[in-house]
Amino acid sequence: MKVARASFIGGFIGTSNVLAGKVYDIPIFGTMAHSYITSFEREIDAFRAFAQAFPENTVLLVDTYDTIQGAIKAAEVGKEMAKKGQRLKAVRLDSGDMAKLSQKVRKILKDSGLHDATIFASGGFDEYKIQKVFDQGADIDSFGVGTKMGVSADAPYLDMAYKLVKFDGRPVLKLSPGKMTLPSEKQIFRFFNPDGKMERDIIGLRDDQFRKGAPLLEKVMDNGKIISQSLTLPQIQGRFLEEFSNLDDKYKAIKGKDEIFPVDLSPRLKSLQEEVIQKVKKEELKES
Amino acid sequence: MKVARASFIGGFIGTSNVLAGKVYDIPIFGTMAHSYITSFEREIDAFRAFAQAFPENTVLLVDTYDTIQGAIKAAEVGKEMAKKGQRLKAVRLDSGDMAKLSQKVRKILKDSGLHDATIFASGGFDEYKIQKVFDQGADIDSFGVGTKMGVSADAPYLDMAYKLVKFDGRPVLKLSPGKMTLPSEKQIFRFFNPDGKMERDIIGLRDDQFRKGAPLLEKVMDNGKIISQSLTLPQIQGRFLEEFSNLDDKYKAIKGKDEIFPVDLSPRLKSLQEEVIQKVKKEELKES
Repeated sequence: MKVARASFIGGFIGTSNVLAGKVYDIPIFGTMAHSYITSFEREIDAFRAFAQAFPENTVLLVDTYDTIQGAIKAAEVGKEMAKKGQRLKAVRLDSGDMAKLSQKVRKILKDSGLHDATIFASGGFDEYKIQKVFDQGADIDSFGVGTKMGVSADAPYLDMAYKLVKFDGRPVLKLSPGKMTLPSEKQIFRFFNPDGKMERDIIGLRDDQFRKGAPLLEKVMDNGKIISQSLTLPQIQGRFLEEFSNLDDKYKAIKGKDEIFPVDLSPRLKSLQEEVIQKVKKEELKES
Repeated sequence: MKVARASFIGGFIGTSNVLAGKVYDIPIFGTMAHSYITSFEREIDAFRAFAQAFPENTVLLVDTYDTIQGAIKAAEVGKEMAKKGQRLKAVRLDSGDMAKLSQKVRKILKDSGLHDATIFASGGFDEYKIQKVFDQGADIDSFGVGTKMGVSADAPYLDMAYKLVKFDGRPVLKLSPGKMTLPSEKQIFRFFNPDGKMERDIIGLRDDQFRKGAPLLEKVMDNGKIISQSLTLPQIQGRFLEEFSNLDDKYKAIKGKDEIFPVDLSPRLKSLQEEVIQKVKKEELKES
């Protein structure tokens, strides 16, 4: 459920999770299962039955026995639909050499006059595999991505920890190697280029002042009460897509090495950290 | 919650998730947070306060500022506890060079006469990192493993699919490249060596018969009713540990390449599959 919601915020156009679609008002996409095909004695009977049941959303899964033979049968059903004024929306490829198969399937659809039937691909896709099949010449209109969004396969967990930064008015930190913390309350200031692209962030003290940096942290709760207004899901998605478009492409490379977005500490935060370190060293480590 | 339960079944001795401990009756383990230390003006005052609050379970986190200085203070508190007839249970290392630090900390504990205080380590451990610090000479008694069990970092998702194997009495399959299925209902037969170790599995038809193979699949539900008895959590853990001990070590290597446990198809399943493939090829692919 939450994966469907998070994926929609990140720019997916819908979900195959019917309950998530209902609960979060996300467009529902879905085709047929292989078991639907194999429950019929003949593949083409399965296609015809599906087209009859869902004439507005006919996406036919063509790889159960052989993708090319399946596409030929789907095209036949597509022509039968066209005669009734209906439309074969898409065929779905789910296995095999996606580049070669998609080109051959496109030809089968075009040769049958089905110029607006699209090709949909599924089966273990992520951003890298999508890039790869396009590099190999795939002719695919849309992708279904599932398994590899359940968790992000390249970063399956998110390491988070609560760290104390101030106690009883006293700024505190820990010095543990590789895990040193920054003392006191913070604010993040974001700087933009004249063209509106994000330039860099500065992590500063809560009461730091910068003429141009926009503060990112907002108070959302006060004395146990939520004081900020919740956004709708389309608003959250819109906000993400707008902000993401303002992050330069060099930070988003799929191939090659990503550049790292610059994040610095403010001068006042740096000197407070140094001050607390010296105090701890003197009192706890007996250094002078 | 479910990770704590699954980890316990897999042989962990407890959890730091207090709610999971209560709900599933799993032993609860826990120490202090760095914030507990930094909330005191002096580290040693934090140690003394903790020892006073939890004299039966005093595990002191020593790396907030410097692991060696922290261990010296912990040993001081350990000696104070010994005078009162209490015992410092353990110190916890959470950062830095675990091999070197653990050896130095062991010496500090021994030199203070704290021979039964143990050394506990935490911080991003998994089976590979544990093996590595022991290879480097670490002197550590126990480990806290958390983040990398939340999901298994090397296999963060489990790809599962429902596939139809029989419909209306007719065995069915799909031929999709790399995704071909096996027709009809199955049973798994497990064969053991004379010494009780698992030798191999055979996937067969439900009504296959083998003189020595033990069938693994049991009926747990009949006509919508659960008909098998649920095991308790300690029973489930015991069953896992016993079965796992019967799997040869060569299938469990942490370093080097794992051997793959042999799994074959039964002759009858193989010939049924071949028969259904021929039928599909003739009818769907027009091959003769």
